[in-house]
Amino acid sequence: MTAPERLGAAEARRAIAAGRLTATALLEACLERIAARDGAVAAWAFLDPGAARARARALDAGPDRGPLHGLPIGVKDIIDTHDQPAEYGSAIHAGHRPGRDSASVASARAAGAVVLGKTVTTEFANRRAGATRNPLDAARTPGGSSSGSAAAVADFQVPLALGTQTGGSVLRPAAYCGVVGFKPSFGHLGNGGVRANTEAFDTVGLMARGVEDVALLHAACLEIPFVPPGAAGIAAPRIAICRTPHWDEAAPGTHAAVTAAALAFARAGAVVGELDLPPCFAGLRAAHETVCSFEAPRNYADELARAGHLVSADFLAGRVVPGGAVTLGEFRAALRLGRACRARMDALMEEHGVDVLLTPAAPGEAPRGLADTGAATFNYLWTHLHMPCLTLPAGTGPAGMPLGVQLVARRHEDAALLAVAAWAEAVLR
Amino acid sequence: MTAPERLGAAEARRAIAAGRLTATALLEACLERIAARDGAVAAWAFLDPGAARARARALDAGPDRGPLHGLPIGVKDIIDTHDQPAEYGSAIHAGHRPGRDSASVASARAAGAVVLGKTVTTEFANRRAGATRNPLDAARTPGGSSSGSAAAVADFQVPLALGTQTGGSVLRPAAYCGVVGFKPSFGHLGNGGVRANTEAFDTVGLMARGVEDVALLHAACLEIPFVPPGAAGIAAPRIAICRTPHWDEAAPGTHAAVTAAALAFARAGAVVGELDLPPCFAGLRAAHETVCSFEAPRNYADELARAGHLVSADFLAGRVVPGGAVTLGEFRAALRLGRACRARMDALMEEHGVDVLLTPAAPGEAPRGLADTGAATFNYLWTHLHMPCLTLPAGTGPAGMPLGVQLVARRHEDAALLAVAAWAEAVLR
Repeated sequence: MTAPERLGAAEARRAIAAGRLTATALLEACLERIAARDGAVAAWAFLDPGAARARARALDAGPDRGPLHGLPIGVKDIIDTHDQPAEYGSAIHAGHRPGRDSASVASARAAGAVVLGKTVTTEFANRRAGATRNPLDAARTPGGSSSGSAAAVADFQVPLALGTQTGGSVLRPAAYCGVVGFKPSFGHLGNGGVRANTEAFDTVGLMARGVEDVALLHAACLEIPFVPPGAAGIAAPRIAICRTPHWDEAAPGTHAAVTAAALAFARAGAVVGELDLPPCFAGLRAAHETVCSFEAPRNYADELARAGHLVSADFLAGRVVPGGAVTLGEFRAALRLGRACRARMDALMEEHGVDVLLTPAAPGEAPRGLADTGAATFNYLWTHLHMPCLTLPAGTGPAGMPLGVQLVARRHEDAALLAVAAWAEAVLR
Repeated sequence: MTAPERLGAAEARRAIAAGRLTATALLEACLERIAARDGAVAAWAFLDPGAARARARALDAGPDRGPLHGLPIGVKDIIDTHDQPAEYGSAIHAGHRPGRDSASVASARAAGAVVLGKTVTTEFANRRAGATRNPLDAARTPGGSSSGSAAAVADFQVPLALGTQTGGSVLRPAAYCGVVGFKPSFGHLGNGGVRANTEAFDTVGLMARGVEDVALLHAACLEIPFVPPGAAGIAAPRIAICRTPHWDEAAPGTHAAVTAAALAFARAGAVVGELDLPPCFAGLRAAHETVCSFEAPRNYADELARAGHLVSADFLAGRVVPGGAVTLGEFRAALRLGRACRARMDALMEEHGVDVLLTPAAPGEAPRGLADTGAATFNYLWTHLHMPCLTLPAGTGPAGMPLGVQLVARRHEDAALLAVAAWAEAVLR
């Protein structure tokens, strides 16, 4: 039998339901893995094994609590939990205890999850890296800002984790660490208890080692019935390669991974085409920066005013200074462009008869070094457009590190995206 | 000279700048008024006179800090401040201290405001009323959910206050108490540090006793230069009466107030017409309920799970039970309708050449009794459509209580709305 910590969430759930595994045994296996690996990976900002053990024991002794019964989960440290600290990746908030569960954590708990601990985030889910290393190569970044969530899931320390995405903070670390990362449609999951960064884009995202696993967590967080995404029985999904205006910024290995995936999908029965974005979409890169720079600094105004010396130079140079230069008129124009492109995108996919776009999840393999968490080049577009998107591991690059392709569906078509992703995962496996 | 506590914010600001008034003298006048009146009005959830006095002294001794230098402000108790409790209108959070300023409070402080205290909110900014009474008739509601903010401003206890609106929680209490209430375009002010209720609609709103005063606070919160809205020199604004599908739900006095305002505007040079909403807008009432019922309960899932016995029966029956019956498909359909109507509204106002809509701010005078804070019948539409809107006091009804008319501009046309509102205020005065 597979070691418990290696089981995917859905598989572990089935083993627990069948009496072949207990919540306690699964938790202990995860804790052992963490004890063995945390020195090298540093995925956790806070762990409470005692509370997790008590919870697992209670679940083992009680009735079935729901779709996550007995599954350990890691929670990015900008998402509040009632019984743990939330430090937001900043020394300013050392030891801060919010005392309340965020919307997604409350839903996960209600569905039987064991909240194992808080995972490392970059400072305020922005740029300055935390201590986490890529579990596949300690000299490389795990990506950011949901660094610890991606690393812990990839390293078999926990089967499920929550992250957040404002640009590419779920999809990119998932690609760098070789796991599945899913950002639902903007607005589907509650943001209550998530430290606000950029209200226009902040979205809770989900990480696991398989599509069925993120679908399980998604159903639990939305409190909708879980339907295994493979059950849709998809035969010929309509997939379009979308190179975006940034294709030249992707490494040759990434080009090859997208092409190989497209060929494999076509061989497996998909209708594969291409979709080029109209020229107006090129303005979204600047629009995304404009909105983020306008919105983010105001949400850290308290820290800047009362503990500015503890805010990183990265955040000041990357957000606060540019934010000070954005005018209200520029902000409004950026919001208007986003709105127009969202409507245009709906129409384009409809006209072209496309279910899902295929595009890179990141420019290439995880960069060497820990200071730079990589670029959201291939992510900000879909976040800006409020579209659901998902990273699917797709082989390795020249350095042997994971590459990811990204699948993107129309707004609100999250269930369709998960169904195609389950199909695509089986094809690429 | 007018007693300091009776001065509007802009007027007080000018007096302080000219050396005719000090922050300390203004604060003491407000504190005296509160001491005399709080027993009857009960607008405050928390007051810290000591901290406010220290702040006022520091401002008096230092250089000019900005557009709100020395002006006291009240903050609705679902908006966090770093040095005061935030109880969200719920016994569950008695004594809770968030330890951090919300985005709008941080901006107001940076502009020189004296944060006087926290104002009473209904439970979780939903329906269950707090202790506040209408300062003009203690047997009537001040409206909700920003009850204390409206009452304190109307009663000359503070010149400025912050509230929030998800349906009509700023505009309606402003109408009932006879003050100006302004809800900016969705997304213009930061929601960081505001207890999330319904992410799709929550908007920080501003209250004062005059249009220039809310414009001053608006500029400070947005950190944009303050331009007095009267300086635009408007001569012939294009105003359209919008009766909405709910005209029959307004009292005759409200019909008369809207008509009288329209006639006065026309006599003063406005181009006054009418704008009827297309039939599809009738679906927005149900759509608004659907989105709110879907989103709100998840943001209080922690309270419901861990302290459900302290959640009111009102909240359970009004939000949690209906929320449990909303499907994801219905939620998506409601979001789609809102999006379509927003685009349609932009086009309609463009086609008809309308700057500002004129519509009731509330169905009528403040209802008798304290349990029912009134209905958002004439507010939810504009909140749903993300449009900036403003309550302007417009005479009194049959019981001698204030009536308000509402002015509504296109999304992002906040400056134009304030300019027309300043013009309209002068006409109605």
